[in-house]
Amino acid sequence: MQGLNDILNLDKNAKTRFVKKGEMLLREGDESSLAFYIEKGLLRSYTIDEKGKEHIFSFASEGWIIADIDSQEFNHPAELFIDCIEDSEIVVFDRKCFKLADLSEQQLRENANLLARRIAVLQKRVIMLMSVSAQERYSTFLKSFPKLVNRVPQRMIASYLGITPEALSKIRGQIAKGK
Amino acid sequence: MQGLNDILNLDKNAKTRFVKKGEMLLREGDESSLAFYIEKGLLRSYTIDEKGKEHIFSFASEGWIIADIDSQEFNHPAELFIDCIEDSEIVVFDRKCFKLADLSEQQLRENANLLARRIAVLQKRVIMLMSVSAQERYSTFLKSFPKLVNRVPQRMIASYLGITPEALSKIRGQIAKGK
Repeated sequence: MQGLNDILNLDKNAKTRFVKKGEMLLREGDESSLAFYIEKGLLRSYTIDEKGKEHIFSFASEGWIIADIDSQEFNHPAELFIDCIEDSEIVVFDRKCFKLADLSEQQLRENANLLARRIAVLQKRVIMLMSVSAQERYSTFLKSFPKLVNRVPQRMIASYLGITPEALSKIRGQIAKGK
Repeated sequence: MQGLNDILNLDKNAKTRFVKKGEMLLREGDESSLAFYIEKGLLRSYTIDEKGKEHIFSFASEGWIIADIDSQEFNHPAELFIDCIEDSEIVVFDRKCFKLADLSEQQLRENANLLARRIAVLQKRVIMLMSVSAQERYSTFLKSFPKLVNRVPQRMIASYLGITPEALSKIRGQIAKGK
């Protein structure tokens, strides 16, 4: 939990868990408002639309926190599903585990920086979904998450980018040919 | 600046300005990384895609801060344009105006809450753009920003929602007929 403790003070209710590929940790409608810090492994969050289609909201690998922030911070029922893409070692915690009053100035700065970084990622994400071509979406993904591209199935990357698996395959083909 | 000082300690370089409808405050590519707190009035941020089409990223009215967070926090050139939808009274500041070390515990909590609220809004925005019908997008907008709907031109609401003005007009017609 060392990396996590650089950012947050969590009490002893924050527990380390070992979870299996495919295991579901949060479901739409849950009111548990859990968050997950990834020590090792890879998780994803996603929605399912009214036609039953999955849309990936985020990936989280080593050193990241994944949660339904709206649910966690404001006690709304979860809008996201969270499950495991790889066998993972995670720290499970909720809002009640925060010991905010005990945070050092350094932790407060780290914490504010983390929140700002998350906002910056989401800002880029919204801009991407609104106004960027499929090709540029993929090249931004490669730049932003170079270590994820070989760990995440192609169909999930396509879902994250809001493009079809066929479009992604075509773009990868063009890149492979050096176009 | 009272509302703003509940959240941030800003030094005397943070200035109040009166700005006119249509006035441009930030342009894509700017490295000034300015942020704007709205005392009175209405601002918007947006991108322009390669075809010259505008896509609205956010609106900000009284009590909100509007900025290109990625640019402001990480010193990247701005990706967003920011201009005024109404004549406005704003506080203009940048990162160097923050006196983080002087923040009280209450301000730190307010600040963390503000950042988390912003993340929650962006999370809902991404989910909306990925997987929600046009009709549901508009009804969520009405619930989230009831005071904005009569202040923002319809074509800008459509742009924010990622739908055509024609689709928005049709949805409004259906609502008016009580469908």
